[in-house]
Amino acid sequence: MPVLRVEHGRAPVEDHDAVVVEAPLELRLGGRSLLVTMRTPGRDGDLVRGLLYSEGLVERPGDVTAVQHCSDVPDEARGHVVNISLRAGAVLDEERTLRVGLVTSGCGVCGKATLEAVSATCAPVAPGPRVRASVLAALPEALRAGQDLFEHTGGLHAAGLFDPDGRLLALAEDVGRHNAVDKVIGEAARFGRLPLSACVMLVSGRAGFEIVQKARRAGIPLLASVSAPSSLAVELARDGGQTLVGFLRPGRFNVYCGAERLELDA
Amino acid sequence: MPVLRVEHGRAPVEDHDAVVVEAPLELRLGGRSLLVTMRTPGRDGDLVRGLLYSEGLVERPGDVTAVQHCSDVPDEARGHVVNISLRAGAVLDEERTLRVGLVTSGCGVCGKATLEAVSATCAPVAPGPRVRASVLAALPEALRAGQDLFEHTGGLHAAGLFDPDGRLLALAEDVGRHNAVDKVIGEAARFGRLPLSACVMLVSGRAGFEIVQKARRAGIPLLASVSAPSSLAVELARDGGQTLVGFLRPGRFNVYCGAERLELDA
Repeated sequence: MPVLRVEHGRAPVEDHDAVVVEAPLELRLGGRSLLVTMRTPGRDGDLVRGLLYSEGLVERPGDVTAVQHCSDVPDEARGHVVNISLRAGAVLDEERTLRVGLVTSGCGVCGKATLEAVSATCAPVAPGPRVRASVLAALPEALRAGQDLFEHTGGLHAAGLFDPDGRLLALAEDVGRHNAVDKVIGEAARFGRLPLSACVMLVSGRAGFEIVQKARRAGIPLLASVSAPSSLAVELARDGGQTLVGFLRPGRFNVYCGAERLELDA
Repeated sequence: MPVLRVEHGRAPVEDHDAVVVEAPLELRLGGRSLLVTMRTPGRDGDLVRGLLYSEGLVERPGDVTAVQHCSDVPDEARGHVVNISLRAGAVLDEERTLRVGLVTSGCGVCGKATLEAVSATCAPVAPGPRVRASVLAALPEALRAGQDLFEHTGGLHAAGLFDPDGRLLALAEDVGRHNAVDKVIGEAARFGRLPLSACVMLVSGRAGFEIVQKARRAGIPLLASVSAPSSLAVELARDGGQTLVGFLRPGRFNVYCGAERLELDA
């Protein structure tokens, strides 16, 4: 994917970056949709066997006898829909779909359909403010300084909301990165501050599809992460007119889309 | 929580470690269970508002008018069950419970009940082999060496399965840490190798409740992570007789439970 590499004291460089692929996988049993989960394609059969057994949806490791990619699907879903065969007598406990995702009518089975489903329910974000590269580069330190719990456990993810000058407006921590984002957005909702059209959000860890989706629902124009984005995250951010920054480290970062919101040194 | 700190060239030290708290939160609407999600307690109201809005379960940020902890619950669930109030005319789209977890009959609403639910469906693991501290300390490098994709994207989580001498038996990568674990377990299931009673599993990132649960389902006696465990992860590992190692770095690591499986230098 195209990326703009920004480093302090140097001119930004247009380059290409290998981005990890994230795409939904739909599981079917007897042709009927069972659940959808996000994953990196590859070894889908192992993923399905492991998921169904480790989550207790099937009782025994050998209950799944085959996992086959379906051919009777639209071209764009090819490779992202599998049908599961169970051994005779094995039962799939459909109540135990905890945390593995559920098929809903609006839920796509391929990247394209997923993007369209989100686009249908979320408007693109507003243009919002421009942010200086130096401000952006200072955010991880500001987030860290605000993480009062971090020093003690080392185990918490954080999400921070900043104004365009880099002032920390809100911060939340949680074992789950998604939860930290939800807490920050929920606080803003409580005070009637959505959409957050003039805000920058920084998340610890990586930026997956769902983080970008949550930021877009909240109207956040600029999302930065200290780690890598996924392919679908970049596509969704581009689709929604968001700026997505990854690998935000002291003095350098990568811009995956929406560079027009950044004031970069020539 | 009690922890055994192991460092190369030094005697192991019994110490205490602050571990991040992870516990389930049950959301109710009109007194009826809606979903359960794992989270770090604190700011539950913000979490719920953010979750319901950012996942599109409610249409507008102001649709949730109140989030209150329920008092009509057993003592051990106190603080972990909330009731949601919606503004007149607001609708909660229950079909959109994608990835946020579902209430099932077997799903607990507090740490204790959650542990009991897992214990009821997973036997404790077998004693399994003993592992030398030096073998354990070398696993992260072996995992990294096996991650052929990692160098390119920087965005993938990995799970590796090792024998007691530190030989890599299986490795999987994914955007999701859970998926990487599922792929490794699924591959073993495909070859009829479960339970993995003589194996060590190493995961990149942190060890949460669900990773420990998956390892236990697969009968893995020793689980190590390069980062922090959560409180519930430690409790579950202890309950199942597993060894849980965290912050596994070159030359040092923390043992949260099951130290009897490790051959430590005096």
